[in-house]
Amino acid sequence: MSVIAKQWVLARRPEGLPVPEDFRLESFPVPELEEGEFIVRIEHFSVDPGMRSRLTGDSYAQALPIGATIESATIGIVEHSLNPRFLEGDRVTGGFGWVSHAVSNGRGVQGLDRALYSGAVRPTAAIGILGIPGLTSYFGLLDIGQPKQGETVLVSSAAGPVGATAGQIARLKGCRVVGIAGGAAKGDYVRSLGFDACIDYQQKDDIAAAIRTACPEGVDIYFDNVGGEMLDAALLNMNPGGRIVVSGQVSEYNREPPLGIRNVPRFITHRLRMEGLVVYDYIKRFTEARTELAGWIRSGELSYAEDVSKGIEGAPDAFIGLFKGRNNGRRLIRVS
Amino acid sequence: MSVIAKQWVLARRPEGLPVPEDFRLESFPVPELEEGEFIVRIEHFSVDPGMRSRLTGDSYAQALPIGATIESATIGIVEHSLNPRFLEGDRVTGGFGWVSHAVSNGRGVQGLDRALYSGAVRPTAAIGILGIPGLTSYFGLLDIGQPKQGETVLVSSAAGPVGATAGQIARLKGCRVVGIAGGAAKGDYVRSLGFDACIDYQQKDDIAAAIRTACPEGVDIYFDNVGGEMLDAALLNMNPGGRIVVSGQVSEYNREPPLGIRNVPRFITHRLRMEGLVVYDYIKRFTEARTELAGWIRSGELSYAEDVSKGIEGAPDAFIGLFKGRNNGRRLIRVS
Repeated sequence: MSVIAKQWVLARRPEGLPVPEDFRLESFPVPELEEGEFIVRIEHFSVDPGMRSRLTGDSYAQALPIGATIESATIGIVEHSLNPRFLEGDRVTGGFGWVSHAVSNGRGVQGLDRALYSGAVRPTAAIGILGIPGLTSYFGLLDIGQPKQGETVLVSSAAGPVGATAGQIARLKGCRVVGIAGGAAKGDYVRSLGFDACIDYQQKDDIAAAIRTACPEGVDIYFDNVGGEMLDAALLNMNPGGRIVVSGQVSEYNREPPLGIRNVPRFITHRLRMEGLVVYDYIKRFTEARTELAGWIRSGELSYAEDVSKGIEGAPDAFIGLFKGRNNGRRLIRVS
Repeated sequence: MSVIAKQWVLARRPEGLPVPEDFRLESFPVPELEEGEFIVRIEHFSVDPGMRSRLTGDSYAQALPIGATIESATIGIVEHSLNPRFLEGDRVTGGFGWVSHAVSNGRGVQGLDRALYSGAVRPTAAIGILGIPGLTSYFGLLDIGQPKQGETVLVSSAAGPVGATAGQIARLKGCRVVGIAGGAAKGDYVRSLGFDACIDYQQKDDIAAAIRTACPEGVDIYFDNVGGEMLDAALLNMNPGGRIVVSGQVSEYNREPPLGIRNVPRFITHRLRMEGLVVYDYIKRFTEARTELAGWIRSGELSYAEDVSKGIEGAPDAFIGLFKGRNNGRRLIRVS
């Protein structure tokens, strides 16, 4: 009685913006379990812009081999187990990728804490606002950005899961928060989160001027998920002593070479600091951060949105759509 | 018995690389002194690449008015005084500019401490290694770079006054130090200062590859005086957790728009930090820094070079030469 699983693999390396033909859906029988193993039936997996660099690789991120499963965060239910630590019916999270089922020996897999994931904190938060996106917002804004009450914080991709969370945390810290997002619907969503203003970059030819208008007292922290022209425009509006958190560079991932920035002399004239983060450097503080984020969610001070498509078949289109500004909130695929 | 003074003024705004016609030499009689004033006969003034931005201005540095005296650090001798705090024969430093004589009421003028400026620490050090260039090296490397023993430090414009000092301080802190400078003579000079290696960028088509060869263990701190392509090449060689000190951007000052950098995604993958400095933010620690720098000079652990031309007439050519990589050490004009 073997289960037939499905998975998306890398068919070929994308050139520029990925296309559906870069991916291939495969079926395979789930192998028999050995002692210590268990089967996870995947409920949801994530679709992440940051995965783009793994598809072609760079000198830091090794390229995913052709034919390998596309990576992502997942949550699922243990269906059958020969491992005493993971029991049938347990809900778990792990990096299984774009798959319907996975066999695991438990390495890198964690059971979901039922007390934490309850009520307003849904299980999918484990791969969203309490997962890598939310933790990136938390440590990026608080540790690198170091917001002070009354400062102005500018956030790009403000309707995305990282930007939306970073902006709301900045607001909780007493900052004036301005988002950048594309289109009226996203702007409405961003303002509904408590952002003081949202710039619709699709309506603005001169993004630097638009930032100047929306941030008349200048920008103290720019939380950047986009890079390129938008980062360059933000640099022109930074106050002396300003901090730039390099969280994502979604406008650059499909460009070779990247567009980059011109306004580097501003780092001297305005003594700016720009810093990137690898969220795993903060792993010892993940529990502390999750507890605080969950508390804000329960008290109603922090919202999160999920943009869920049903069916494993749609994963490549959802991924490609990320680079066209189509998602609203955390992009997830519901497998089962 | 009025003294005829000379001064260089801004004749017109340069476009791109300055040319001699952008400057004009004027003569004027030194005015009669009023109570509290004194005359300074200028001995030396400095020629600084950072002054370029003042000639055209940007949104931060206000443009110098047309007809105004070109600004610079100076040292000179008090010739005649109606101010009890400044006596005839005192050697003083102040920002009098490209002039032969100046009248002052003492604001912004300081007498040179004879104990500090003695022996190996020449009076001209007050506008060089113990002045803004040396203090920029000191605070940029130590406070922003935070060098640790055994790290690799890369320094551009390594034969210039800021780079040469930053590299030597890095070596004093136990780092491996690699310079970048143009031409064999500068390379010899840089190595004579104790740098472990020096890259001659004029001989290298692929500067990123040259850095890789000279820094096989990667770069932990890049002390950048140049910007543009060189900064971009350094970014490709930074180790995770690397720091970039934005001290100068001499390759960018004559470019409109600046060339900038492409490799911003490295800030995420390698969690880099890039920070500029305005040395005046450290003014409360200037005395401490000068004392330490002077101690290293006296003990023979820190060298400094001055590239002195005689005669006020040559100032514009010396300034233009800075952007053509012609100087070796701190560029000074000896007026009298």
